[in-house]
Amino acid sequence: MTSGFEQLERGPANYTPLTPLSFLAWAARVYPGKTAVIHGERTFTYAELAARVRRLGSALARRGIGRGDTVAIMAPNVPAMLEAHYGVPLAGAVLNPLNYRLDARTLAFILEHGQAKALITDREFSSTIAEALALLGRPILVIDVDDPLYEGGRLVGEKDYEAFLAEGDPAWAGVGPVDEWQAICLLYTSGTTGDPKGVVYHHRGAYLNALGNALTFGLSPRAVYLWTLPMFHCSGWTYTWAVTAVGGTHVCLRRVDPALIFPAIARHGVTHMCGAPIVMTMLIHAPGAVKTRFAHTVEMATGGAAPPSTVISAMEAMGFRVTHLYGLTETYGPATVCAWQEDWRALPLAERAAQMARQGVTYVTLEDMMVADPETMQPVERDGRTMGEIMLRGNTVMKGYLKNPGATGAAFRGGWFHTGDLAVWHADGYVEIKDRSKDIIISGGENISSLEVEEQLYRHPAVMEAAVVARADATWGETPCAFVTLKPGAAATAEEIIAFLREQIAHYKVPRHVVFGQLPKTSTGKIQKFVLRERAKEIGRAD
Amino acid sequence: MTSGFEQLERGPANYTPLTPLSFLAWAARVYPGKTAVIHGERTFTYAELAARVRRLGSALARRGIGRGDTVAIMAPNVPAMLEAHYGVPLAGAVLNPLNYRLDARTLAFILEHGQAKALITDREFSSTIAEALALLGRPILVIDVDDPLYEGGRLVGEKDYEAFLAEGDPAWAGVGPVDEWQAICLLYTSGTTGDPKGVVYHHRGAYLNALGNALTFGLSPRAVYLWTLPMFHCSGWTYTWAVTAVGGTHVCLRRVDPALIFPAIARHGVTHMCGAPIVMTMLIHAPGAVKTRFAHTVEMATGGAAPPSTVISAMEAMGFRVTHLYGLTETYGPATVCAWQEDWRALPLAERAAQMARQGVTYVTLEDMMVADPETMQPVERDGRTMGEIMLRGNTVMKGYLKNPGATGAAFRGGWFHTGDLAVWHADGYVEIKDRSKDIIISGGENISSLEVEEQLYRHPAVMEAAVVARADATWGETPCAFVTLKPGAAATAEEIIAFLREQIAHYKVPRHVVFGQLPKTSTGKIQKFVLRERAKEIGRAD
Repeated sequence: MTSGFEQLERGPANYTPLTPLSFLAWAARVYPGKTAVIHGERTFTYAELAARVRRLGSALARRGIGRGDTVAIMAPNVPAMLEAHYGVPLAGAVLNPLNYRLDARTLAFILEHGQAKALITDREFSSTIAEALALLGRPILVIDVDDPLYEGGRLVGEKDYEAFLAEGDPAWAGVGPVDEWQAICLLYTSGTTGDPKGVVYHHRGAYLNALGNALTFGLSPRAVYLWTLPMFHCSGWTYTWAVTAVGGTHVCLRRVDPALIFPAIARHGVTHMCGAPIVMTMLIHAPGAVKTRFAHTVEMATGGAAPPSTVISAMEAMGFRVTHLYGLTETYGPATVCAWQEDWRALPLAERAAQMARQGVTYVTLEDMMVADPETMQPVERDGRTMGEIMLRGNTVMKGYLKNPGATGAAFRGGWFHTGDLAVWHADGYVEIKDRSKDIIISGGENISSLEVEEQLYRHPAVMEAAVVARADATWGETPCAFVTLKPGAAATAEEIIAFLREQIAHYKVPRHVVFGQLPKTSTGKIQKFVLRERAKEIGRAD
Repeated sequence: MTSGFEQLERGPANYTPLTPLSFLAWAARVYPGKTAVIHGERTFTYAELAARVRRLGSALARRGIGRGDTVAIMAPNVPAMLEAHYGVPLAGAVLNPLNYRLDARTLAFILEHGQAKALITDREFSSTIAEALALLGRPILVIDVDDPLYEGGRLVGEKDYEAFLAEGDPAWAGVGPVDEWQAICLLYTSGTTGDPKGVVYHHRGAYLNALGNALTFGLSPRAVYLWTLPMFHCSGWTYTWAVTAVGGTHVCLRRVDPALIFPAIARHGVTHMCGAPIVMTMLIHAPGAVKTRFAHTVEMATGGAAPPSTVISAMEAMGFRVTHLYGLTETYGPATVCAWQEDWRALPLAERAAQMARQGVTYVTLEDMMVADPETMQPVERDGRTMGEIMLRGNTVMKGYLKNPGATGAAFRGGWFHTGDLAVWHADGYVEIKDRSKDIIISGGENISSLEVEEQLYRHPAVMEAAVVARADATWGETPCAFVTLKPGAAATAEEIIAFLREQIAHYKVPRHVVFGQLPKTSTGKIQKFVLRERAKEIGRAD
């Protein structure tokens, strides 16, 4: 190494920490007069958004909040929630977006575990928050978001958000990260057992996943992004930053309601939106009167569960193009995409949907993925049959779990992030989830993929939503048990559905029980199988 | 800092050095069967390209070439040139793409200064290279690119490129960078005075500028990129990596010739291409017979000089959309873009072209830009009138000049990269170059922008190309002197052109002399004003 290449050092001219804060600074320079945020009848330009963010950051700094401090926020997709994704890190602090469907006790645990010094909270959640703050038992700075688009609730803090911004300096330079490895967000996973784990994001990963999203989803300066995905969910899959990175427009939305979504698409010319499959199901089954037509195609990215073929075709018929993403809180949201291949165009819908239902291949910004045996860490065959665990690695994998070296070490064992999702690896390199490790059903020694049974249930014309879980069985160890929500106005009996399934799949895979009713869901729209497992036990007793 | 955020450390699961090598690994996983490279009748899929690259890297490694070593390449836009941008860094080495328009003496200087251990060279340049190698006076490994699409020249090396690849292992894992700050490319600026300076790129900057290009130019997996820009020029403005980062198709082109370009656009469905304004001028003035029509719009990015309004409108009429970029070798090529603003759509062509002729605003991946007084480093007013020097900073600024701490220190003085370009800063944040520092003409104490005079010359219906330089004058210090190439078949006298200009601009700005003929150009298509200055002296003597 006698060459001179190593003698060239970093300096302010040629090195700066990667941070999504740079996206807003850039957008405010390039598109100062362009609409950055739409919320009801209110709009902010990029110059205004940047000024509000600087006010927020400096108001926090004046209260002594800075590097390494945590600021929590409990809000739907309102401007304050977006602004907090910039203003809090601008003060050097860490943003902790709270899941607004959590109970007071869990919220108190999170505020304590994350050592929140301040909380920004929307009136809608005042009763839960008041209870959580009482449980927390130590005073913190509480700021109220008093959004005119919501009626009800009460103010529980010491200061109104707009008044708090007024304390700040709209020209503040900010602190920002000293190092791109510095924490930017703290997001608690809605674990089904035990205490929630605090997933820590850093500036580098947030920057890179946002660019990965912008490229993968085809965002451009013409992008108009409708916030149908909660921003508290993986910081809105990093679209909080990605939309800004192209100078697009954020359209806020307090709640997922087709009666709001269709008119917003038509009115604002929405080009992109994201959401769990339940969002698509809601759009498809919305009353005809609210289904405003629009002339353009809307890109819809979905994740959390594979979109069934019926959902894909129904969405396409309404003017959407569906892209299937996969990821976890630990990977800043989306880490893989079922990347479109040109030769799929010629396939009949069912086959095309089968391709699109796969979790796919990595984002260009993620280093690598494999499906492997979690014990030996050996990759499985790419035969579309052998199951293994999806493992990911790269710069868009979390920093780790806060104050939880045991869980962090387990998650990163062998130099890969263990997703806990069981999948097969296809010959074309695409992965397909067959189940969560804990959702697999083992009946008479045979593995049954609950997803496979669910996919068949969705093909029944009367079924709107379905979930299959294991139920203890004295003879078989476990047997599948189905929970089904029927479409509005549709009717079916358990016997009909079982007969339908027996024509589609192996008999040992067919549920012994079919239970009708609403399905319990997590705050992010995922079906809570642990609740269904409890219900399945009850059925057993009632038999 | 009692929080636990800092205790979470980097590991292989969540950290990897940024490198454009990851783009090829990704494309080969996601699009293995897709056409990566087209060269004449030959095509390579991404799986094939990746295998060829691994062969190249391992063949170099087997010859003992690795970390910190330099491998030079002298080739037009052929597959070997693209492959070298991956294969050489995969071996841990630094690629030194040579400007094929340089003379043997300069090439020998570069090979010695850069300490090249190997040279890959195309038959087309064999006579110059043979001379350069003789001047170098030390033996290095020389590999011949024996491209069937070129007739002539001879083989000067010890091995044919394809035979060299055959030595390599198509499954080699590679070395890659240990650190993203490691050098990836070495590019010598075609300085007009003194020895060329070796600009060093690192993996991090190459990765980020490639993503910046992909986003700014709207690349997607459907991108078909025609190589009208030489890859030796700033590593093809990092499009060598950017096109791969989206899984697009590279269409090679040995020489810029409208008779090749138009058919290639139509045949391959080219979506994007880049080049200096001279490329557009060639396309516009090509004989009607070669102007194949195509039904789609081709995105054309240009840089090096502002596109005149006549060029923009003529390109639009032929089906191109022009984007104006600006950058330097030191900034991995493009660093700014004249980002489109929706309200320009309503402007008449002349005004729109005036907007588009500006160098614009930074890429989202560049940290910041200012127009400042180079002495005081104070930003100038954003009044569109006050001149200053364009200063840039961020991760896509070079590592520095190889073995030239003096030049590196001067370039980075005050924590900004000094571009040497004089510009004004408009109220909308867009910069507009008025001249190179050394190209400004000072006449009777008044600054004359040679670009302003040239823009007016381009408006004369008979003028195809024009350049204006200073000529020493006993009375005024300097006066402008114009060099003009007329359009094929057009005619004009010096008197007519001077009369035309006197109606457009202040009399003191009007050239005293107008010289007709071909303009001397650099290897990258820039007009060589230093040659014209010498010619201007001669005119003086002949007066």
